[in-house]
Order: sequence, then structure tokens, then C-alpha cells
Amino acid sequence: MKGKEITIYDIATKLGLSPSTVSRGLKGHYTVSQKTQRKIASTAESMGYRFNTFAASLRSSRTNTIGVVVPRLNSYFMSQVIAGIEKVLSEAGYNLLISQSLEDVNKEIRNVKTMFNSRVDALLVSLASDTKELSHFDVFTERGVPLLFFDRIPGKHTAPAISIDNEQAAYEVTKHLIQQGAKTIIHITGNQLRNVYADRLKGYKRALSAAKLKFSPDHVIINDLSETSGIAAAAKLKALKADAVFVANDSCAASCMKEAKRLGLRVPDDVMFAGFNNDMISRNVEPALTTVDYPGIEMGELAARNLLAHLDERIDLNLMKDILLKTRLLVRESSSKS
Amino acid sequence: MKGKEITIYDIATKLGLSPSTVSRGLKGHYTVSQKTQRKIASTAESMGYRFNTFAASLRSSRTNTIGVVVPRLNSYFMSQVIAGIEKVLSEAGYNLLISQSLEDVNKEIRNVKTMFNSRVDALLVSLASDTKELSHFDVFTERGVPLLFFDRIPGKHTAPAISIDNEQAAYEVTKHLIQQGAKTIIHITGNQLRNVYADRLKGYKRALSAAKLKFSPDHVIINDLSETSGIAAAAKLKALKADAVFVANDSCAASCMKEAKRLGLRVPDDVMFAGFNNDMISRNVEPALTTVDYPGIEMGELAARNLLAHLDERIDLNLMKDILLKTRLLVRESSSKS
Repeated sequence: MKGKEITIYDIATKLGLSPSTVSRGLKGHYTVSQKTQRKIASTAESMGYRFNTFAASLRSSRTNTIGVVVPRLNSYFMSQVIAGIEKVLSEAGYNLLISQSLEDVNKEIRNVKTMFNSRVDALLVSLASDTKELSHFDVFTERGVPLLFFDRIPGKHTAPAISIDNEQAAYEVTKHLIQQGAKTIIHITGNQLRNVYADRLKGYKRALSAAKLKFSPDHVIINDLSETSGIAAAAKLKALKADAVFVANDSCAASCMKEAKRLGLRVPDDVMFAGFNNDMISRNVEPALTTVDYPGIEMGELAARNLLAHLDERIDLNLMKDILLKTRLLVRESSSKS
Repeated sequence: MKGKEITIYDIATKLGLSPSTVSRGLKGHYTVSQKTQRKIASTAESMGYRFNTFAASLRSSRTNTIGVVVPRLNSYFMSQVIAGIEKVLSEAGYNLLISQSLEDVNKEIRNVKTMFNSRVDALLVSLASDTKELSHFDVFTERGVPLLFFDRIPGKHTAPAISIDNEQAAYEVTKHLIQQGAKTIIHITGNQLRNVYADRLKGYKRALSAAKLKFSPDHVIINDLSETSGIAAAAKLKALKADAVFVANDSCAASCMKEAKRLGLRVPDDVMFAGFNNDMISRNVEPALTTVDYPGIEMGELAARNLLAHLDERIDLNLMKDILLKTRLLVRESSSKS
């Protein structure tokens, strides 16, 4: 059974004070002594009084809530980013409202609308794989509600964005495989609407070109980068005469490598493998997977810190175009020929 | 520059209607024709009108927001549960407010207080590893705000809880290892304040006892079940003459198994391994890891569906004590002796 909501009148009656004293005391007003403030606060707490955050936020027009829209919550990388965001925001007294687009632009549009109606103070977004048009974010920019993209960012947009240099990171992976002797490098990647995958493909091509290796569209496999798709892709490696495979994430790379081994290919001697993200799985498969260290927690923390600084008017996010985080190539046994 | 908030008066002026017609139209009132309702809605949207969810919720005393407090957001299992919760709640039009305790009871207490003040319609909780006392949840039960625990649930508490039969699942893992010939089974697990780890230890002991094997406290290693702790634990296996290791999660089992192999132990011939959770990592290590399939997404979906049914007064959660989900032992190469 739901009890009656406790009001300042109930607290006032209990303490023999006037309701206005209780109200001012709860707000820490200087006209109420410290001792009385403490007494009011402890009585309010013991009676189960709910400070009316909602009513207060209607007055101040701040809700102290930040919205986050991501493609999938159940991704190792994304869970790291969200953990980083939550850590910083909760220390600063903000709440975190989250939703996932499930890689569907229509759900993303609904999520963004819900976040807007929930009056978030700012919105953090990583795009769904099939998002082309960005007009669902206009309402934020038009109303001056800060909007910050991270990781999967729009190609051309006025809102600021936090990401890594995906092209350069992929260039370095590919260059490393070439230095190890690879001539036929298969690249497995995701939807080319997204910067993260389009830029990695560019970096792969640039490294081939720099080494005077011919680029072949047949060597690029585009799928959803899932564990299952990795297994399916392994079946094509022999026919393609691949001597190296560069996959745009670690979980797909790990399942592809395991299946390639099952099909009789030796790693790295017959075929080398490299992934992307430095997920936990990359360190625990055999051979350990060469990958790109891609700092999810740091990306989340940095995104949250920049938003807070903007909300406190310490920086103006709109003056920033892109914030790039460092990455690091981690060479492991999957691409180290003995 | 922040624009002025659009009001129903602005919409009324634009359409040449009275503000009260606009207000009723936005609420879908029968006195306003469907055609006019559509015109009002599309004009409101194009002008960037924010339906005042907050003011509406003050009136209805519902915020359509559900709070979730978990130990860590960056855990494969927890990210599955949260994905399941979000999917169901967002389809039902609810927002999801999340926070992590970072395994610290003090942060958990602060998180729970914030959720209460944010007036969530219900709270879903999985406990921090060091939570003993549960009085920080009393304010929810006292005020009649639904509270539902999942996975890491209190030992004795009046609130309903969703979990698996941890003792039975661990009993089956241990029994399987014994059937495969193990005599000295090491159990690596987490803080015994938590049901998930205490119950798994009970199941392990019960299987030993059923097989008339002696239980030795030296064979139980309690740590934080991290990747690093798995590596550290591997160093002790030879001295303990272990012929099997049962670890209470997969990521710790995977790193421990990999390190054991590096130290010269053959898996499964010298030492068998089993984990818990059926994380992606368990399928991709070598040998593939025997584990317990533990449905994170389903647990999240079930928790959310039960809460919604309670909020809609279709079921009364308070009549339920425990909801148990099925688990399944998955025997793989790490414990299959040739």
C-alpha cells in the first residue's frame, strides 16, 4: 500500500516550526540557524520526505539529468564508455538517462525525442549503423540544449564530437601486417555509413597504396561484425588466398580466427590476424590478438567532463569541432611470425 | 544561444486557435477534431515545442522513469541485463535512469537516495559486493515505491527478487568435474556477502560431499574475480595439485586457464577448467570453456516485465518472494578428457 506523500507541513507539525521555516531550512537559507537546519534535515529524512527535484527543476529549468543514446548497451566497448560517463556525471551530481537504438534509426529518432521531452540538460549520442539523415537532432541545437557526439559521429554536422583517428589507426594496423610480409590482406568491417568503419577502410586502402599493393574490392567483407559473422567470414579465407585478416572489432576477429584454425589454417604462419578495440577477449584468445587500444572508459570520462565544463560555462563546446583521443597499436602473437 | 521556450500560446497564435484548444488538442481531447489535433501536433513539432513531461508527471505523480542501480556497468553480464531492461521499458514508454555503485556500499547508498529524490516509479537493484545492511532501501518500501532485486539479491529481505539457483548450478558444474575424474577441485569465487558467490560455494561443497570427497578451505580462493586475479590464481594450481578449477565467472576463468597453460599445465589433461555465465569469451578461448549458461538479457527483460505488470496493477510483486530463472550446464573441451 502506497503511503501518503510527506510534505513540509508534516515536518513543520512534527517539529513545531512554521512551514516556511522548514522550507527555508531545507534549502539551507541563512535565516535558519545551522542547528535548526540539521534538525529539519534529519527529521525530513526519517519521515521519508522526498525533496521535490522535479518541482525544483521546473523552477530552475535544469533537471540535472544527462541523456545518452547508444547503438547497443550490450557491447564491451560501449559498456566501458558508459561506465566512464556515469563515473564523472554521478560525482558531479548528475543523473544519467540511457537508451539504445538497437542499430535502428527509427528507434534512435524515438529515443532522441523522448530525451528532449524529458528535458535533459544535454545529450550524448553515438549513432545507429543506418542513420543517414540527422534532422532529429535539430531540435537540440535549435533550443540550445548541448549535444555531443562520441565514437560514431556524423560526417558533417555542426555539433562537436569526440572520437579517435580511425583512419590513422587502421593505416598502422595494415602497415604492420604488410611489414610482417602480408600481400593479400582481407578487411572485415561494418556499415560504411558510419565514420568508424568508413575511416578504417580508408586507412587500410592508404596503407596498401603506400606499399604499392593493389586494392581489390573482393578483399573487403562488410557485415554486422558479430561473433556469428566472423565464423561465416572464415570460410572465405582459403578461396581468397588470404595471408592476413584485419577485422574492425575484436569479437568478430576472435571468432573468425578460431574458425579459421578449425578449418586447418595456422595462425600466424598461414594467415595473420588483427582486430580493433583491445577488448578483454583479444588478450585471452590463442594466439593473442594484435589490436588497437581504444580507450572506452577514457572516451566516456572525457565526453562527460567536456559536457560538464560547457554546462558550467567554463568552456564553449560549440567552439570545438573534433576532439580526438590517442590510440595505440598492440602487436601480439596473431601477427608475429616466428 | 538558447532560444525562448515555445509555449502553447505561440502555437495558438501561429494557428489562429485559442490556447485552450491547443492544450486540449495536444492531449488528444475528444472536443478537438482529429484533423485539428494532427495540425496542432505537427505545428508543435515543427516549432520545437517540448511537451512538459515534468509538469505532467507532477500532476499524475508518475514520472515514467525506472531507476537501475548495478555494481558495475562495464561487465559483459550486466550490460546484457541492462540491454534487456532497456528494450522492454522503452517499448512501454518508460525512461531508464542508471547508476553504478562501483562495488562500494557508500556509493550505492548515495545512488539509491538520488533515485528516490528523482522520483523514479520503481527501482531495480543488483547489490555491491560489500553491502551488508539494507536500510537504505527502506524509504522505498515505506513509501510504496516498487523495489525489485536481481542477480545479486539480499539474503533476507521482504522485497521480491529475480535470480538463478546458484547453488544448484554450481552443484552441477562440480558434479560434472568429479564425473570426469577430478579429485582436487579448486573453487575460485568472490565476496561471500553476496548470494551469487556464497550459494555457488554451497553447491560446490554439496557436490564434493555427495561424492564423498573431503572439502578443504585451502581449495577455495576468494578474490575480486577480475582478469588479473585469474592470472595470479594460476600460479597456485601446481602447489595445490589441482586437477580441476571451477571459477565463479568466465573472464577470470579464461585468464586463469591461459596463464596455467603458459606455466606448462595441459588443459584438460593435467587440469580441467569450468567457468560461469556463458560470456562471449568462454566460446572463443582454447580449449573452449565449460560454463553455465546464465541468461543476462532474459533476466533483464523478465525483471522489467514484472515491474511493468506491477505498475499496471496486473500482478502484485509483493506476493512474490523469488523468481528463479533456468540455467544450463554447457560442457566444452576445457573439461572433456580425451
